[in-house]
Amino acid sequence: MIINGQEFADGDRVRVRLNRRSYEGILMPSRSGNIVLKMTNGYNVGLSPENLTIELLEKSTPPALKTAQHRHQGKQELPTVSILSTGGTIASRVDYRTGAVSSQFTPDDILESIPELSEIALYRGEVLSMIFSEDMDASIWIDLARAVHRHIMGGARGIIITHGTDTMTFTAAALSFMVQSPIPIVLVGSQRSSDRPSSDNAMNAICAARVAVSDISGVTVVMHGSTSDDFCYVHRGTKVRKLHTSARTAFQSVNETPIAKVNYRTGEIIYTGDHIKRDEKELKLMDQMDCRCALIKFYPGMPPDIISFYIDRGYRGIIIEGTGLGHVNRNWTPMIRKAVESGMTVVMTSQCINGRVCDRVYSTGIDLLNAGVIEAQDMLAEVALVKLMWVLGQTSDPTEIRHMMTADISGEINWRSSI
Amino acid sequence: MIINGQEFADGDRVRVRLNRRSYEGILMPSRSGNIVLKMTNGYNVGLSPENLTIELLEKSTPPALKTAQHRHQGKQELPTVSILSTGGTIASRVDYRTGAVSSQFTPDDILESIPELSEIALYRGEVLSMIFSEDMDASIWIDLARAVHRHIMGGARGIIITHGTDTMTFTAAALSFMVQSPIPIVLVGSQRSSDRPSSDNAMNAICAARVAVSDISGVTVVMHGSTSDDFCYVHRGTKVRKLHTSARTAFQSVNETPIAKVNYRTGEIIYTGDHIKRDEKELKLMDQMDCRCALIKFYPGMPPDIISFYIDRGYRGIIIEGTGLGHVNRNWTPMIRKAVESGMTVVMTSQCINGRVCDRVYSTGIDLLNAGVIEAQDMLAEVALVKLMWVLGQTSDPTEIRHMMTADISGEINWRSSI
Repeated sequence: MIINGQEFADGDRVRVRLNRRSYEGILMPSRSGNIVLKMTNGYNVGLSPENLTIELLEKSTPPALKTAQHRHQGKQELPTVSILSTGGTIASRVDYRTGAVSSQFTPDDILESIPELSEIALYRGEVLSMIFSEDMDASIWIDLARAVHRHIMGGARGIIITHGTDTMTFTAAALSFMVQSPIPIVLVGSQRSSDRPSSDNAMNAICAARVAVSDISGVTVVMHGSTSDDFCYVHRGTKVRKLHTSARTAFQSVNETPIAKVNYRTGEIIYTGDHIKRDEKELKLMDQMDCRCALIKFYPGMPPDIISFYIDRGYRGIIIEGTGLGHVNRNWTPMIRKAVESGMTVVMTSQCINGRVCDRVYSTGIDLLNAGVIEAQDMLAEVALVKLMWVLGQTSDPTEIRHMMTADISGEINWRSSI
Repeated sequence: MIINGQEFADGDRVRVRLNRRSYEGILMPSRSGNIVLKMTNGYNVGLSPENLTIELLEKSTPPALKTAQHRHQGKQELPTVSILSTGGTIASRVDYRTGAVSSQFTPDDILESIPELSEIALYRGEVLSMIFSEDMDASIWIDLARAVHRHIMGGARGIIITHGTDTMTFTAAALSFMVQSPIPIVLVGSQRSSDRPSSDNAMNAICAARVAVSDISGVTVVMHGSTSDDFCYVHRGTKVRKLHTSARTAFQSVNETPIAKVNYRTGEIIYTGDHIKRDEKELKLMDQMDCRCALIKFYPGMPPDIISFYIDRGYRGIIIEGTGLGHVNRNWTPMIRKAVESGMTVVMTSQCINGRVCDRVYSTGIDLLNAGVIEAQDMLAEVALVKLMWVLGQTSDPTEIRHMMTADISGEINWRSSI
């Protein structure tokens, strides 16, 4: 990066002076245009590049990259798995302990810290982004979908995507719709960084690798299954939600059982749900997304003018998180009708998370359906949002939009009432 | 109600003609200004009162009200419990089966359909509203708080509030802050109306009555605990969430164990958590609320201009449902700072539901704290919203607001990490 005419790299140790204060630390990757320094106390500070002076104290020394192939001569019979890194706690091993920057989860990093992985596959790596997952957006989902497609075209037999846990399920849903895949695409993260005794990153990574070489095609999330550290769950990418801020068992399948469990010690995969087998589907990339979609969570007394706000801004879709079976205050109905008449797609989900939306039970719900609301069935609100962005990227025909939103495209709608 | 100059009552059977179509049915309570008819097929239809003709077919015949006292001479040693009815499925017994309107859950209704209740207490009743709970708002919460206060002043030893399940937990939180109570205030509802074989309303009502005469003071939610129909849970009014659209076990305590279980058959109450005992607190009504508060659920790529929308409308508080430990995209930080500088209170909760918000782990969180964000600890987002409305009704001093939002006032913040 160029700062005040000088070139710097992530990892450089620098001293910055701004407003008579001095900051010393390591340059962190930044997408905001600000300079982000990892200070020696472990905290980061973000500084506007204007009016500051910056001086180089020490150049970064990136570790030499040794390819996985070099290390595993004689193991060429193992399948090749691509590791795409996007950042997050799983990739922040050194970050928290020493304040250093080497947070890339390269094949070298992974093999060095988790030697068991080399028994499972050969690895290729690509660092796509290095961000906190709350900074994810659709443009990065698109980059990621294209990278996945490229790696599958390049011969990968499985994909592992390391991802921050905050928005991992949004990304999983996005990839589920954007990439129709003949091979496993496994998202994995870590709730605790690896310098903490309770870290889950080795176990999660090993289980993710098992799934990446397994028969389970399509997008899954592989994360810690129980506090007794003996297995990971394999969740469908469109049916999983982060349900705890910090617990390692935060990820849970909603409205269906997980696809499988992976035994950490033996590597055995025990199937507990349905999946589409490897090579059953042909590779297809559908990477258009229309981000002009909003998620609105309803609460008692919430005025409906929030919908006008989105109509005025040219939004094309709204996901409402209603109460119970999918309700909002009845004074919302005229505004929703107006939105639908203006060409907007309005989809009803429930803030209950579990269960199915049904607007046919109460009269207020029937009014909503008459106003043009589409029931999201048992789709998670977050998944419905990502799906609507994707559907609106594929078509602008209202009939087709409704058809796609109510059809099960990638396991996001479960028609059986198994739960 | 007056329709086209004629007077009608809820429950009247009428014929309506509009645009050459004819509708026959029973007049339903309506808050929208529209005429709502329960048709013989069980569905409701809403019709604008303009340009229609209406004719009376049959006057409603409300059942004669017999007071509980009359029926229970000789049982004067039983404590008196007030039943305040607000509507919802628990009060819709006849509604779904016959299309009739008698949906008031009066003492007579309750004693007639659930005779076991008369062994537990004497009952007084008041119908406060008859609405779908998604139509609740703060003005009704205030009415309800005042009614609760009035009934306690009038000698009630317990209060039962029948409520639609959709927004029951919002109301429970509102009452928890507005009324400091020496006696039990029990919210109860039903996920299935009583004409369905799987109805939960008798069991929920009986368990609610047990709690209303128990030692558990303050606001609780008493609902079905297990699918085997043997007990109800007693949830703290500030720690409970509806977590399924239709299951009878939809209500669950979050971030703490329930206060107690009530054995349906024996009436025994088994304590599983903390509670404040009957008569430990003095009665106090604090019924001011400032509704200029919004809840914003964050999703990846969501632009921060939604905050401007609320600043421009004079809102005084925002609850953000962030990701993970309490994060939003880093491009939100300047807008949040602007909101705080404009005098708005901004509180961070997590869409993970379970767990605690902590913005001290990652640098982006620290930036949010520096911008003035208040961490909601382990408060549910819905509870934080209601609490903020209440806090802003009590004070406009920023220091006091921050102090109250981070203090445990009514069990809404659990400082121990029991879960």
